[in-house]
Amino acid sequence: MRIARALLPDGDVYYGLVADEHFQPLHGSPFDRPLDALTAAGRPAPLASVRLLAPCQPSKMICIGRNYVEHAAEHGVDVPSEPLIFLKPPSAVVGPGEAVLLPSLSQKVEHEAELVAVIGRRARGLTLDNALEAVLGYTCGNDVTARDLQRRDGQWSRAKGFDTFCPLGPWIETGLDWRGQQVQCLVNDEVRQSGSTADMVFGVAELLVYVSAVMTLEPGDVLMTGTPSGVSPLRAGDQMVVSISGIGTLSSPVRAG
Amino acid sequence: MRIARALLPDGDVYYGLVADEHFQPLHGSPFDRPLDALTAAGRPAPLASVRLLAPCQPSKMICIGRNYVEHAAEHGVDVPSEPLIFLKPPSAVVGPGEAVLLPSLSQKVEHEAELVAVIGRRARGLTLDNALEAVLGYTCGNDVTARDLQRRDGQWSRAKGFDTFCPLGPWIETGLDWRGQQVQCLVNDEVRQSGSTADMVFGVAELLVYVSAVMTLEPGDVLMTGTPSGVSPLRAGDQMVVSISGIGTLSSPVRAG
Repeated sequence: MRIARALLPDGDVYYGLVADEHFQPLHGSPFDRPLDALTAAGRPAPLASVRLLAPCQPSKMICIGRNYVEHAAEHGVDVPSEPLIFLKPPSAVVGPGEAVLLPSLSQKVEHEAELVAVIGRRARGLTLDNALEAVLGYTCGNDVTARDLQRRDGQWSRAKGFDTFCPLGPWIETGLDWRGQQVQCLVNDEVRQSGSTADMVFGVAELLVYVSAVMTLEPGDVLMTGTPSGVSPLRAGDQMVVSISGIGTLSSPVRAG
Repeated sequence: MRIARALLPDGDVYYGLVADEHFQPLHGSPFDRPLDALTAAGRPAPLASVRLLAPCQPSKMICIGRNYVEHAAEHGVDVPSEPLIFLKPPSAVVGPGEAVLLPSLSQKVEHEAELVAVIGRRARGLTLDNALEAVLGYTCGNDVTARDLQRRDGQWSRAKGFDTFCPLGPWIETGLDWRGQQVQCLVNDEVRQSGSTADMVFGVAELLVYVSAVMTLEPGDVLMTGTPSGVSPLRAGDQMVVSISGIGTLSSPVRAG
């Protein structure tokens, strides 16, 4: 099942289901009731007639650093012995097709394609056995990073916290097995990043156990699971696409900020 | 004017005004309309009959590290040449009187009393001239920190992100001039931290200019302006109080998690 959020031609915003190139609006939200309690709100609209938005509105975005061996190596650091947690601000989120704006404060902004787990229910103290039950599904994400500021600041919140630095979408795929999926980032149709989630240092369940021992996860929160190797600088005018097998593609034009 | 949020005896939660030991509930929120458009909802209740909650519900909490010279010195580091930004997750917020829980993952949890600016309107690209217009008012905050994990992790999100690690309150004082206020933390009635906001490295307007050049501030977001020297470890059973002149006191019992 593909859960999306969309702006309809009449100006209303709905959660809904995507199937057969149509968007079926739903009453309510998949984050405040079970999926089988969601009922149709009107007739399906052609997907081309709606504007897809980021598929959730996280109260927090928990990200994991250095979770692929080769990405850590390209920055000259070891993979950590425990997951490395950081946060992005919700103000950074943009939806499919929305531009990533290059701030004048940075001379080196890079893409980081990531598999993103979207939390479906409030959760704390998850175990390896029940962790994946807290996940509604998976979407594509891009942990856009001002690499020069990341190195300079020490703490990563500014470098990864600019407005538009977190494209999410196009939808939440509920049926996905996260293991063995291909995570890619293409810039101007050229493959820059290509990795398999099989190469993640810590898997999704391990990450959720680790994070939920610290903080309560809320419905709509996202866990960004780290990026494979191949990050590279962006220029105004670039067309960036994150593509994950079993989910879909998330496109972001790059513009001067 | 003192703006608070409270749970009333009938179970409803309202924003309201605190005066003369009473809480006057208001229709709506000070974060979605001008203060002069807020109207009374029913009669004032004795302050002792309501339970004050954290006075805002931030979409993000932007914190500043090493913003007092002596606090930086006690950690053996220089003050930074630019503000040092990090984020706490909203799931860490607790209100006045709510317990701070010591997680078993840490052996050294410390208090950090801070002046907190509460954002009143959406803002981006603030200037020194207009920055303070984005502030609704000020409250007391406590950037509780697992010092051992902070040192070990490098990134501070875990060490500062545990549930209950961000007491806020008791209310938002709208009339305050932030300059020259005393910021104190008492543990079991003993003064542990005592500093003046006059000794902040970067003032509130400078911090808001810096942060809003990166991320859009939303109504209810908080800027935590850093802590003076004197941080010290907490033990279960401690009674912790943050006190700021011109605002009031924020009490937090400390318990095992």
